[in-house]
Parts: sequence; structure tokens; C-alpha cells
Amino acid sequence: MNFEAWQRRKRETLRVLRDHLEAGRVDRDIIDLLNVINSLPYAFTTSSCSGRIQVYEASMPGEKFELKTLGKWHSPITSKDLLGAMIGRNTWLAMLPPILHISVCSMVPANHLLKVLRGAGFKRAGIISMARDGIVIETIGTERIEMPLRLEGRDVIKLDAVPSLVNIVNSLLVKSKERLGRLKEALGDEITRGLDNICGE
Amino acid sequence: MNFEAWQRRKRETLRVLRDHLEAGRVDRDIIDLLNVINSLPYAFTTSSCSGRIQVYEASMPGEKFELKTLGKWHSPITSKDLLGAMIGRNTWLAMLPPILHISVCSMVPANHLLKVLRGAGFKRAGIISMARDGIVIETIGTERIEMPLRLEGRDVIKLDAVPSLVNIVNSLLVKSKERLGRLKEALGDEITRGLDNICGE
Repeated sequence: MNFEAWQRRKRETLRVLRDHLEAGRVDRDIIDLLNVINSLPYAFTTSSCSGRIQVYEASMPGEKFELKTLGKWHSPITSKDLLGAMIGRNTWLAMLPPILHISVCSMVPANHLLKVLRGAGFKRAGIISMARDGIVIETIGTERIEMPLRLEGRDVIKLDAVPSLVNIVNSLLVKSKERLGRLKEALGDEITRGLDNICGE
Repeated sequence: MNFEAWQRRKRETLRVLRDHLEAGRVDRDIIDLLNVINSLPYAFTTSSCSGRIQVYEASMPGEKFELKTLGKWHSPITSKDLLGAMIGRNTWLAMLPPILHISVCSMVPANHLLKVLRGAGFKRAGIISMARDGIVIETIGTERIEMPLRLEGRDVIKLDAVPSLVNIVNSLLVKSKERLGRLKEALGDEITRGLDNICGE
């Protein structure tokens, strides 16, 4: 690991993030958490999503590159929102949990951060790559809904069940976002713990 | 890292796996893949699931410790299977992708294995823990369905949509399992690549 290369990457990434923040392109629900992580001397965020509700057209779920988005929301939705997007031949509803990518300067803080993430309820957290200029941790919330609303041009969902479906999707989104707050608290405690010399080794 | 401690863990784990295999407790769809991974000098599997369809009762999805299983299948199901499990107050249908935990002897093969996994279509793969007796990699398929069948004692799903729902859930299960075969091929090529001295460093 090259600490200077990592620090250079951190400076560049934070500069780009600042531009995105000023342009209002960053999801509000996650800004405080990003600031806390980026103030840790051994870490910075490279990408994030605070969790969202999405309706999309695709023959199979999760076809990232072949889907057509019909609706996307970062906050709770109404039955009207959902019904308005319930069109198309094969249409899916997803409640996608928060996701974070964090670059750390060495293995010791990487291992440490994995434990902090799990302690704050982010059970799914792992190192996904190791390079000269940083070790990247990915963490994803575990709560998720991914379901067909329409298949072969016909509704799968009963229309009178839409309100209770919307209700459960919204609850799950709120629960996911609460976890972000808990993680912020846990990482806030980290700042004062004096792990600032950990990158040198 | 202590290579001898890791080798001891590997021997013990494979002994337990052999017992499970003989007792028929291991999911047939994944046995060949486990054998390939366990023949690599730098790796062994600690737990696995080849992917499954599950119907369960729970107030929220993914409540691992509070759910009541109403049906569980490791191979495609029929509409009758699904309808038979569509009971209860809050009932969920899940198509859970394959999951594998692999212990490796050091960071070099860990990094290498992450790349092989991604190359074989297991895009979600990461190091989840590092200890004296091994580095653990977790990988999970990305295809997933998790949806309510019943909420507050009432059906969410239209009964005439059950066949097309079953169809899509089965397709996704089959697709997930095909990935296991692809991973087996990719790892089979590894065996001859002479990475057997990689644990010493």
C-alpha cells in the first residue's frame, strides 16, 4: 500500500463530492454519514445510495443494464405513485437497501471498520478489492423487496392490496434509513479514538 | 497468518463435511463445486447453500430469527406447492441466491479468488473476516426475489397470476444454479495453475 497515493485519491474524491453536494446531486439522507466517514483519517467514501424504492421494466429482476426505470423515490411513496408506475409488460418493484463503498488506507483499519459496520447492523460488509491506492469495503443493508408487479402484460398484484404493499415497502425504507443514523453514531464515536496513525504501517 | 493453524482448520472442516455428505445432508446441486474448491491447496468451504425457494411467515422480510418457514425447496416448484404455503397473516416468498463461505490461507489467494468469483458472475464477493487461522470470503448471487404473498391476513397476489409467478421464480432459481456450474468450471481451471506455494508467504 502507498499511503501518499491513497491520500491523493482521498483529496480528489472529496473535491468531486463537494461539487456534487453543491449541485444538490447527493441524496440528503446520507450526507451527514458521508461527512462523518470522510472525517476519519483512515477512510473516505467513493460511492453511496441511502436506499430507494424503484419500479422498473425488465424480463428478470436485477438486470442492471437492461432495465427501464418507471419510477424512483428516495422517500416513502403513496398508492398513487405505485399505481402510476404499474404499466408495461414485465414490471418490478424494488426496495433497495442503502449501499456504501469506503476506501481505507490499510488492512488494520479495514478489519476495524468491518467490525464497526457489523456492530451498527450492517451485517453484509466485506473487502471487495485491494489496490496500491486503497482497500475498498462494500456494505449493503439486508432488508430488501424485489417483486413482480406485472408479468406478461397482466397484474400480479391485487389492486386492493396496493395500500398494504405500499405501507410495508415504506416501513422497510424507513427502517433501512434508520440504520444509516445508527452507523453515523457508531462512526462518530470513532473520530475521538485516535486511530489517526493507523495508515502508516 | 498461521498456515499450520489454517491447515488444521481445513482438515477438521473437511472431516465434518464428509460426515454431512455421507448422511445426505448436503444440497446435491452444490457438491461438485464444494469438491473443486476444497481441492484447491489455498482454500476450503466453511458453509454453503445452492439457492432455494422459501415461503415464510414474518412481519418483515429477512427477519432471520423470527420467521416461521411454511415451505422450502432447492429445486423448481409447482403452483400447487406455492398455493399450499399461501397461508398465515404476513407471508413472504423468497428466491434466495446461492451463498458460499470460503476460507483462504493468505491475502494473495484471497485477492485472486475474488477476481475468479467475479469473472464467473459472482459480482457480490468480499472478504468478511481476517483471523490467524484464515481469511473468509463470502459470495452471494445477485438474482433475488423477496415479496409478500399475504399481508394482514389477505392475499396480495392474484390467484390467476400464481402460474406466471411460479414460472419466474423457477427461472431465477435455475439461472442461479447455472452460475454455480460456471464457477465450478472457472475454479477447475485453477487447480492446474500451480498456486500451491501461495500459502507460505
